[in-house]
Amino acid sequence: MQRPVPDSAPGQVWAHTGQSFPAQDYDVVVLGAGRMGTACALFLRQLVPTRSLLLVEEGGLPNEDGATLLSPGVWTTLDVPESRWPEAHWTRTQLSADTWDITFQPRPVVDLHATAGEARIPSRDLTLDPEVVDVAALPWATVDTRAATYRPGAVALATAQAAIRAGADLLLNTRAHLGGDGRVVLERLTVTNTHQIVVHETHHVRAGTIVVALGAHGSHAAEHDLGTHTAHARAYRQAPRVNWPSTDASPVLRAGGVTLRPQHGGYVLVPAIHHRDPAGYVPTGGRLTGVPTGLRRETLEDLVAALDVLPVLGTEALESGRSVSDVPGAWFALPGGTPAGLPQHEQVAPGVHLLLGGPHADTLGLSTAYDLAATIAGVAERPWDRPR
Amino acid sequence: MQRPVPDSAPGQVWAHTGQSFPAQDYDVVVLGAGRMGTACALFLRQLVPTRSLLLVEEGGLPNEDGATLLSPGVWTTLDVPESRWPEAHWTRTQLSADTWDITFQPRPVVDLHATAGEARIPSRDLTLDPEVVDVAALPWATVDTRAATYRPGAVALATAQAAIRAGADLLLNTRAHLGGDGRVVLERLTVTNTHQIVVHETHHVRAGTIVVALGAHGSHAAEHDLGTHTAHARAYRQAPRVNWPSTDASPVLRAGGVTLRPQHGGYVLVPAIHHRDPAGYVPTGGRLTGVPTGLRRETLEDLVAALDVLPVLGTEALESGRSVSDVPGAWFALPGGTPAGLPQHEQVAPGVHLLLGGPHADTLGLSTAYDLAATIAGVAERPWDRPR
Repeated sequence: MQRPVPDSAPGQVWAHTGQSFPAQDYDVVVLGAGRMGTACALFLRQLVPTRSLLLVEEGGLPNEDGATLLSPGVWTTLDVPESRWPEAHWTRTQLSADTWDITFQPRPVVDLHATAGEARIPSRDLTLDPEVVDVAALPWATVDTRAATYRPGAVALATAQAAIRAGADLLLNTRAHLGGDGRVVLERLTVTNTHQIVVHETHHVRAGTIVVALGAHGSHAAEHDLGTHTAHARAYRQAPRVNWPSTDASPVLRAGGVTLRPQHGGYVLVPAIHHRDPAGYVPTGGRLTGVPTGLRRETLEDLVAALDVLPVLGTEALESGRSVSDVPGAWFALPGGTPAGLPQHEQVAPGVHLLLGGPHADTLGLSTAYDLAATIAGVAERPWDRPR
Repeated sequence: MQRPVPDSAPGQVWAHTGQSFPAQDYDVVVLGAGRMGTACALFLRQLVPTRSLLLVEEGGLPNEDGATLLSPGVWTTLDVPESRWPEAHWTRTQLSADTWDITFQPRPVVDLHATAGEARIPSRDLTLDPEVVDVAALPWATVDTRAATYRPGAVALATAQAAIRAGADLLLNTRAHLGGDGRVVLERLTVTNTHQIVVHETHHVRAGTIVVALGAHGSHAAEHDLGTHTAHARAYRQAPRVNWPSTDASPVLRAGGVTLRPQHGGYVLVPAIHHRDPAGYVPTGGRLTGVPTGLRRETLEDLVAALDVLPVLGTEALESGRSVSDVPGAWFALPGGTPAGLPQHEQVAPGVHLLLGGPHADTLGLSTAYDLAATIAGVAERPWDRPR
């Protein structure tokens, strides 16, 4: 990030169980190397470089199962209350720094409506592909001209690398549990030659501060290990590909409750999250009028409802698959239990902080991670509060 | 019901596969002998006794798996828009007839609130059990003094019997599919001596009119068999028992989002339905702070949130069980996909009508079943529209 990193020896990385892990105690242990955990680790190294820090990740870097890789990577203030705009703009400034490779691309978000309203312009004034969106059915548009797209997975990778350069240690392929009383139980995982994931060795590490940044699994981990209760929930969102040509100039489109995000010369379809999924829900492919697909039923219904305004969804361009494993999808945390919940952190036990990104982490994730790092560091100032 | 039943020979009942079923064609076939299907069958026999009618049920009578038995049986206009009150009051008149044994019990519904508002009275003026509800925390109440409780399962049984007396045929233990073109495929089920349910024989029956009254499974059946699409959904609601004494004078209590319904000298807890459950969801017992229970996680959260205002929920009186099979629960249809959806019927194909009850069937189920019967019969008049 832009803030100068103090001189410090780079941290160590343990990627596999062949590398001996000394299991010393740390001032701070961060669980989870998604974009929230990596950013918090980096900011902590910058704000309090004297505190030793270990970042623990169950998978690799980036983790292919988490929400970070599946997030649309759309920065926009359209979904964020105005009181949080200074943070959002600070996040945008960090993301747009030219020091990293996250495919940052200024690109408007065009939110299309059937009716007129405040700050809406005629959508025919925008040059939208008529085979993608039916402008006649949605004659009005809200446009966020400051919006941008980027790759959240690349942000997680870049911040993790920056954190290591700034002295953070990184332990990969390790499952962590909260042991209570400032202890973290670390289970280093390995894969047998029959492809079973097994625990190779278990360590106990003490930490004065623990940051639980496990995404959709964070609140469960805090509850299960600490016996606390949280109000957070989670939802499974799929992001099927739409093979319709897009360019760097193509805007992000929102219509009929779904988002079309230009990516890799095509589009990714991002369905709305309407509400939490119940505990115990296992994602399953849906059938609509008898035809099996890889999309969950609720998303299929949204697509059917959006067909009138987004004709491209009725074409072969949509990769809906045959079973749920055909369609990329991930569990998203819902801070506060609702899809509108903004990224947040919460102290769930003495010295234990839960850090949640969720559906709006593209816009407010970095600033929330900074806010927690500054809280832990005892720093009152926030960079977005500075007069500019 | 009160309407005079024309002279007619009673219908036939086939309860098990030992009884030979002739499989003749019918003018009307009603699928599902829950309270919606049985009521529609009875009203059809009353309105058009010349049309032959077969009522088909997959289980027994009453069906122990459906929503009818698990509905709270609380008639109240609190949840119903005023435009539907004539229907609601007509339904209440039918239910309160002294000709059947449904434990009809006039009993107020007391809806408790933390803040004042229109039509709210001080809740300390009501004699509420302080060990059940904390009146100090909820000083205001809306009271439906016209409310009543009854047993929906008994209504289904009584209307089915009345329909048979009025000439309807009844085929039990039979699974039905829509065959298209006015055909119904009937699979008569039997149980092997290893307790497996198997198809004993299959019949094809023609019907000019088909009523799909399969509760939460109705829209799926219509979609799967007919290739149509509907906007309806479903949710799994549990109703655990609360062993705290109640009397015939105890009101139905609503507080903190849950309902306590006096029954059998105790209470039944009826949680709110917040939204649909996703397709493929299998109900599972939840864990809250590590302790396994038979209540689903979302209901546990509601109970935790309501503990402050309903102290009885924090006692041993609540039968929360150890696994999901310990707690009575059923799938409810959500007409229109939302918990606020009122009972409704919809023609999904020529001659095929989908009849849905859902969470508000206690108040508007009978009238909606009548409305469909009258629609099929070609009768324009509705009894609740008559000047009284």
